[in-house]
Amino acid sequence: MADHFADRLLAAIERKRSPVCVGLDPVVDRLPDELRRAAPLAGIETFCREVLQVVAPSVAAVKIQSAYFELHGAGGVDLYFRLVREARELGLIVIGDVKRGDIGSTAEAYAAGHLAGEDAPDAVTVNGYFGSDGVQPFVDAACANGRGVFILVRTSNPSAAALQDVTDTSGKKLFEHVADMVAALGADVTVGQRGYSCVGAVVGATWPDEARALRKIMDRQIFLVPGYGAQGATAADCAASFSSEGAGAIVNASRSVIYAFRDQRYADRPWRDAVGEAAREFAADLAAAVGL
Amino acid sequence: MADHFADRLLAAIERKRSPVCVGLDPVVDRLPDELRRAAPLAGIETFCREVLQVVAPSVAAVKIQSAYFELHGAGGVDLYFRLVREARELGLIVIGDVKRGDIGSTAEAYAAGHLAGEDAPDAVTVNGYFGSDGVQPFVDAACANGRGVFILVRTSNPSAAALQDVTDTSGKKLFEHVADMVAALGADVTVGQRGYSCVGAVVGATWPDEARALRKIMDRQIFLVPGYGAQGATAADCAASFSSEGAGAIVNASRSVIYAFRDQRYADRPWRDAVGEAAREFAADLAAAVGL
Repeated sequence: MADHFADRLLAAIERKRSPVCVGLDPVVDRLPDELRRAAPLAGIETFCREVLQVVAPSVAAVKIQSAYFELHGAGGVDLYFRLVREARELGLIVIGDVKRGDIGSTAEAYAAGHLAGEDAPDAVTVNGYFGSDGVQPFVDAACANGRGVFILVRTSNPSAAALQDVTDTSGKKLFEHVADMVAALGADVTVGQRGYSCVGAVVGATWPDEARALRKIMDRQIFLVPGYGAQGATAADCAASFSSEGAGAIVNASRSVIYAFRDQRYADRPWRDAVGEAAREFAADLAAAVGL
Repeated sequence: MADHFADRLLAAIERKRSPVCVGLDPVVDRLPDELRRAAPLAGIETFCREVLQVVAPSVAAVKIQSAYFELHGAGGVDLYFRLVREARELGLIVIGDVKRGDIGSTAEAYAAGHLAGEDAPDAVTVNGYFGSDGVQPFVDAACANGRGVFILVRTSNPSAAALQDVTDTSGKKLFEHVADMVAALGADVTVGQRGYSCVGAVVGATWPDEARALRKIMDRQIFLVPGYGAQGATAADCAASFSSEGAGAIVNASRSVIYAFRDQRYADRPWRDAVGEAAREFAADLAAAVGL
């Protein structure tokens, strides 16, 4: 894992012509019928491993959502880390969606647990509410290990604006202050050969105007863009997070891909085929929107 | 767990005359020599179980810091949940310091994993950067299960002010907007017989002026107050988080208690005695400061 995280991610996006990431959000009730009958974790494991295999040819990265594994206790956490390894062996960049955040030695412990060692993902998501001294340990651990972080700047949910739009007397909003912090943290570390930092940002696709403003503040950050598909954002909305050269961002979709077999459009297809086809369509939709 | 969380916590504080909480932040390198030689998790387990036993008579609650367990992978997470049960069997209120936060069905999954089922702690800490729709699933799960949440309002670290003090044109700061959100979430759920909500707030002891302002905004919230001891806040600083009747808050100390045997003051004492004595002094210091 010696290469710079941003270089590895951008190379994977180019190689596959696929600026997208599929999110694993496994929920027992939504699994294919044949797997729902298995013991919860066994069904989830089989489902996730097969999803990884069918999406691997067409997507650059996967995002594994820790919450759905923590729900199953220690056994779920064990499976999370085994899937990280499985995804990496398939040549995928792996983002651990853990949204951790804390201060001082506690932040160091989280960073050591989630960004170091061979089982850790290539990058994790981090909540920056604490300010820079809370985020720095994650940045240090990531950059020391050829890994990355994506700091929450603008989340994709409806009530994001309630706090993130608090506006100071100069007209600057909270999420722009967070963006300044992220850009400054990113400037302190070596950027990769392609000009992007290992410190990235989460910017919801559901807020394209905000994304355009953020692209100007954070010109060295890779944006991880949630909100496409099940949350309602289109490929055109997502395009606002990319640079003028169509780089610097990766769009995530979770439910609209991994549960595609529940969609009328794929009703007559075996579930694996539906997931694979949905991943290909998702990648093609985004590649076209950003001119890749 | 049918009784209201706030009533249970406040009753424990009164019964023990101890408005305090000891934090378990186990780090292998800081364990007593005899335990440092054991395999990491075995040493941590023995240490934590013995700390729980020696502090249980003099403190109302314990706060178990998830980061130091996640650092050890699935085995660490298993130990975290076993210690939750152990602490509860000792009659302690147990706060899981997980600082989770996300949106929609992901927040629901975190809440189900950390606030439901017999192994879950009595309350968890939550990061509210997402706004109310991200926090609501935690509140719903907590209140449905006789449990509580403590939402981060003002953190205790030096750079807390950088984002949390962003001030709008009316003079209101971000952390006060968060406090409004917390007070509103708390108002929607039944408060306990003692007038406090199951929705509490994290308010750092290192910011006593801010704590006084927050006490006015959140009059039905129990404050979980970190920052005493190793982080430099005094009992007088902590008192700012209590109501005029000396209620409505619980102060946490972690390192200054659980590693007291490394302090010169206790240099000639067996480690368990040092930890027990530090817990008693901590509780007495705070009880005196708030007139309990």
